Amino acid sequence: MVNETQHTHSASSSSRSDGGSSSGSESSKDNSRCSTPVLDADRHERLREKMRRRQDAGDKWFSLEFFPPRTANAAVNLISRFDRMGAGGPLFIDVTWHPAGDPGSDKETSSMIIANTAVNYCGLETILHMTCCNQTKDDITGHLQKAKRLGLKNIMALRGDPAGEEWEEEVDGFNYAVDLVKHIRNEFEDYFDICVAGYPKGHPEAESYEADLRHLKEKVFAGADFIITQLFFRPETFFKFMKDCQAIGITCPIIPGIFPIQGYHSLRQLVKLSKLEVPQEIKDVIEPIKDNDAAIRNYGVELAVSMCRELLDSGMVHGLHFYTLNREVATTEVLKRLGLWKEDPRRPLPWAVSAHPKRRVEDVRPIFWASRPKSYIYRTQEWDDFPNGRWGNSSSPAFGELKDYYLFYLKSKSPREELLKMWGEELTGEESVFEVFTCYITGEPNRNGYKVTCMPWNDDPLATETNLLKDQLEKVNRRGILTINSQPNINGKPSTDPIVGWGPSGGYVFQKAYLEFFTSSEIVTALLKVLKKYELRVNYHIVNVKGQNITNAPDLQPNAVTWGIFPGREIIQPTVVDPVSFLSWKDEAFALWIEQWAKLYEEESPSRMIIQYIHDNYYLVNLVDNDFPLENCLWQVVEDTFELLN
Amino acid sequence: MVNETQHTHSASSSSRSDGGSSSGSESSKDNSRCSTPVLDADRHERLREKMRRRQDAGDKWFSLEFFPPRTANAAVNLISRFDRMGAGGPLFIDVTWHPAGDPGSDKETSSMIIANTAVNYCGLETILHMTCCNQTKDDITGHLQKAKRLGLKNIMALRGDPAGEEWEEEVDGFNYAVDLVKHIRNEFEDYFDICVAGYPKGHPEAESYEADLRHLKEKVFAGADFIITQLFFRPETFFKFMKDCQAIGITCPIIPGIFPIQGYHSLRQLVKLSKLEVPQEIKDVIEPIKDNDAAIRNYGVELAVSMCRELLDSGMVHGLHFYTLNREVATTEVLKRLGLWKEDPRRPLPWAVSAHPKRRVEDVRPIFWASRPKSYIYRTQEWDDFPNGRWGNSSSPAFGELKDYYLFYLKSKSPREELLKMWGEELTGEESVFEVFTCYITGEPNRNGYKVTCMPWNDDPLATETNLLKDQLEKVNRRGILTINSQPNINGKPSTDPIVGWGPSGGYVFQKAYLEFFTSSEIVTALLKVLKKYELRVNYHIVNVKGQNITNAPDLQPNAVTWGIFPGREIIQPTVVDPVSFLSWKDEAFALWIEQWAKLYEEESPSRMIIQYIHDNYYLVNLVDNDFPLENCLWQVVEDTFELLN
Repeated sequence: MVNETQHTHSASSSSRSDGGSSSGSESSKDNSRCSTPVLDADRHERLREKMRRRQDAGDKWFSLEFFPPRTANAAVNLISRFDRMGAGGPLFIDVTWHPAGDPGSDKETSSMIIANTAVNYCGLETILHMTCCNQTKDDITGHLQKAKRLGLKNIMALRGDPAGEEWEEEVDGFNYAVDLVKHIRNEFEDYFDICVAGYPKGHPEAESYEADLRHLKEKVFAGADFIITQLFFRPETFFKFMKDCQAIGITCPIIPGIFPIQGYHSLRQLVKLSKLEVPQEIKDVIEPIKDNDAAIRNYGVELAVSMCRELLDSGMVHGLHFYTLNREVATTEVLKRLGLWKEDPRRPLPWAVSAHPKRRVEDVRPIFWASRPKSYIYRTQEWDDFPNGRWGNSSSPAFGELKDYYLFYLKSKSPREELLKMWGEELTGEESVFEVFTCYITGEPNRNGYKVTCMPWNDDPLATETNLLKDQLEKVNRRGILTINSQPNINGKPSTDPIVGWGPSGGYVFQKAYLEFFTSSEIVTALLKVLKKYELRVNYHIVNVKGQNITNAPDLQPNAVTWGIFPGREIIQPTVVDPVSFLSWKDEAFALWIEQWAKLYEEESPSRMIIQYIHDNYYLVNLVDNDFPLENCLWQVVEDTFELLN
Repeated sequence: MVNETQHTHSASSSSRSDGGSSSGSESSKDNSRCSTPVLDADRHERLREKMRRRQDAGDKWFSLEFFPPRTANAAVNLISRFDRMGAGGPLFIDVTWHPAGDPGSDKETSSMIIANTAVNYCGLETILHMTCCNQTKDDITGHLQKAKRLGLKNIMALRGDPAGEEWEEEVDGFNYAVDLVKHIRNEFEDYFDICVAGYPKGHPEAESYEADLRHLKEKVFAGADFIITQLFFRPETFFKFMKDCQAIGITCPIIPGIFPIQGYHSLRQLVKLSKLEVPQEIKDVIEPIKDNDAAIRNYGVELAVSMCRELLDSGMVHGLHFYTLNREVATTEVLKRLGLWKEDPRRPLPWAVSAHPKRRVEDVRPIFWASRPKSYIYRTQEWDDFPNGRWGNSSSPAFGELKDYYLFYLKSKSPREELLKMWGEELTGEESVFEVFTCYITGEPNRNGYKVTCMPWNDDPLATETNLLKDQLEKVNRRGILTINSQPNINGKPSTDPIVGWGPSGGYVFQKAYLEFFTSSEIVTALLKVLKKYELRVNYHIVNVKGQNITNAPDLQPNAVTWGIFPGREIIQPTVVDPVSFLSWKDEAFALWIEQWAKLYEEESPSRMIIQYIHDNYYLVNLVDNDFPLENCLWQVVEDTFELLN
């Protein structure tokens, strides 16, 4: 009878899909939001599969196109924009290929590096554009290999603009996008998802609209997975194009390219480049208001919303692709009005999931990098894979050194002058440092009237969740417990809780109270005496810059401090306090005193010497209260410490 | 400055041990108790390291010696005894080597297989004895290789009794235990921990006491890790021996062998074999009561307790080794009176940890095998390792087939006649089967006056924890929901809770309510209608013997149903409901109807046909209530189902 059951396995696995799935609707909301670690085995399915699943679920989506920035500063700003617009849940973003900007290089402004940053550091599904004309096969293969190495999985294959008027087809060269599509499939088989461009009005250089459709069909049959169209002004244009495509046998997804008009000049320039004609009814509205940017943008938003509605209502369109021109306001406005902007109102976990395929199974990180997730990804980028969802060997995780504090995606968004205003043009003693920390916590202006909106360890204002602890944090910072990370304890709040919830609905989230701070050796001495009373309840790690390390942590085991229980899933445990990686974090946390703060001042200046003194003499402390169902005892620990000192 | 910190890692890791460890005392209580999955990375340290750690912690321990049984039935009983005596927390057990009983064979009564069962199925640290005299090098190497393959890690190296009187040393042969010790170290390097025998009165065949001590020193210097002594009757004998050993440079642990006198004849026989003399003061007590077994045993217990106390109080003795003669009562009594019997009053997890080194990291199992952990270990014995603490690839865990239902460690402890009395000499319909299930739950005698103390799916009476659900279980079993596994929901009870607690103290344990049962297709149809109302709350799997499978589980992901949060640790999640392995469990659960129950009856008999009908037509159902903080809704689900049917 055991033999009889052999065939039932396969029978059952096919019938399995018949069972209604309660998670179907939930997982169809999957997007590129970057706040929660892996919850679905298929979270990192291929872009074309995501598209198909969203279409099957009747779930509309959007995507965003950006071009690479010209300067390093602009790159920092663009990365911040990726984070902000990523929060709305685009299915993917794409980065255009600028042949003139050394697009495949390691420059921080290159198409390649911007796409790399979007995937690895912002966790966004990303398509890298690539043009082929006037390039050698080796160049192109080199670019593709590099893209693959960096974790990029999608290419938009384009011909690009021929250089000069006198362009002629090269024999065996890359003359058309279809050559690039074929090359990618030849050399990389099915590794990349390939996107190609469609021209609803026909390509301006094509012999005819029909000829252009045939070219498109060639590209698709050569291996392209989906089509994004050039912008257009009337929904009918798209509907006709789509029907014509279907009529000649193109069945892959065709995504309309939407261009919200944002200004008179940008419209004129785009029209010129793309050789499109603006319909008279639009010209009639725009010309009279051409000097009123706000009016034009408002009109552009109206126009885009109304066209998008018509497209979506037709049932033929499942996703919309936005030409953002690297601007936020108009596109975001259109998306919000369409109800496509799906920002999670709940706090993000300190996570910033990377979209690199090798990090697909990563599901736990040390809490120390909570405010510096990009740094964590950078310092672990050389890890080969993530067995057990983390470092391979927890007793010796090899963290990369953080040599270059000026990596553009780790750079402070604020310039030196602003930092000096926030952190003090001149420090008079350790107390002035306490004041900076306190102002950051309270949100009150400092003595010179400036708000402290970032710190070396945190480039953003205080998290909503940390706000819950504001009063206590203020009190202890004033007295020299310089907090850089903390979380309250949570005993089973619904996963939909607006302040502390995360993950799919129907679950419960938990936390152990956590407090991390720098403090003087005098306070540490008292603290250690107090901690004896809490020996069975509080785990601590206390370390100075030289690596002197005092802890009561058992063995080298991590302590789970954030976890969630969800229907039909294993337990998710996204953050831990891990004694081994704490020593790597210690290097980074102490270094930030010097690199981000001390170096604002002249060498040998009193201000610089104060920061240097703190760096050399203070300890970095972390405390975990293991009794998460009881009232957080860490404030009492600190209170007891101050009492002992008095 | 980043470079500066290079050296601090090693500095800190040495100073790390200076920090007081709150888990030190807890982990020193580590023993062979087999109810909790891996909590310490070093749980499976080597026996000699465990010994050293216990000694350093000032923590006394005991060990138990058994000999292999003569019959298969006796083997089943011995395995049950391992489970019961294992609960008291021995540091290890050892199994003697019976040259006459084909000790290295695959027979269920061989020394090798009994030791294998103790390690793999009872989770006991085990020493296998091995004798060398009259054996070839190849034989011995073969035995050792087999032991290693089975996961045995410790050998007691003995000479054994020469066959016949005319024994002579063989040149280059194995003449003494020291030859075996050398051979093991030569061939297997440091793989095995090696134990050797010490004779406090000198070996009976040694030229002298001093010569025997020199032999012992040779064995230790050849690579033995510790010594267990022959039995003795007076503590002074041991103290003198120990001092003499130390005087000649033997520094390894020496463990006194304790023989609680259990009867007149066993004492006489042992004394004859070991050529020891019983002291006059003992003879004086025993001779007058030699026909009163109980009186002799009581005296033996008294004597053993008093001698053990003296040994332990001396400070020279850290562990006691008991010659049990395969009996339980006397040894258990001595251990309880000494305070060494450390039974955990809390319920065991459904786990039975295996002591096989490759299962060192196993920390999660499907709940289905809760009452058949030995079967689970058996069916997963071919797994190469346990990445992620479990099956390597959760989407296709390959379970071994359970072909032979008569594997001796899976056999029912009750003989056929008893099973018939419990489960019915003659069944009259499905209702008589409902009655058997109900009687098992209530503990009430059946209509013929017999208590139902086991079921095909559970060889033991109901667990204390399940008793919490008794009333509801009784109600549903009466009506044909034939439950075989269940647990209540638990929302953060202390890990020391006597009924539901597990794991180290200071933690909190959680459960999702779980219910697993067989039931008719009529009830399943109604149940499915009811479950629609609970779609977001209850996960279910419903499968029949042919493998028709209905589920609302998302993807193929396991659902965690038991977990614990402990100070300074990651989350422990010992049991899950796993949709893939459920299909393997289904095969086993349905097969038990036939193999254990139907086959009690004649072929073609009405009773057998009733069981066969149930096997062919019923469904196996499991339900998980994901809302563990709320009141368990599974009873309401069943209630609603019955209502719908009425």
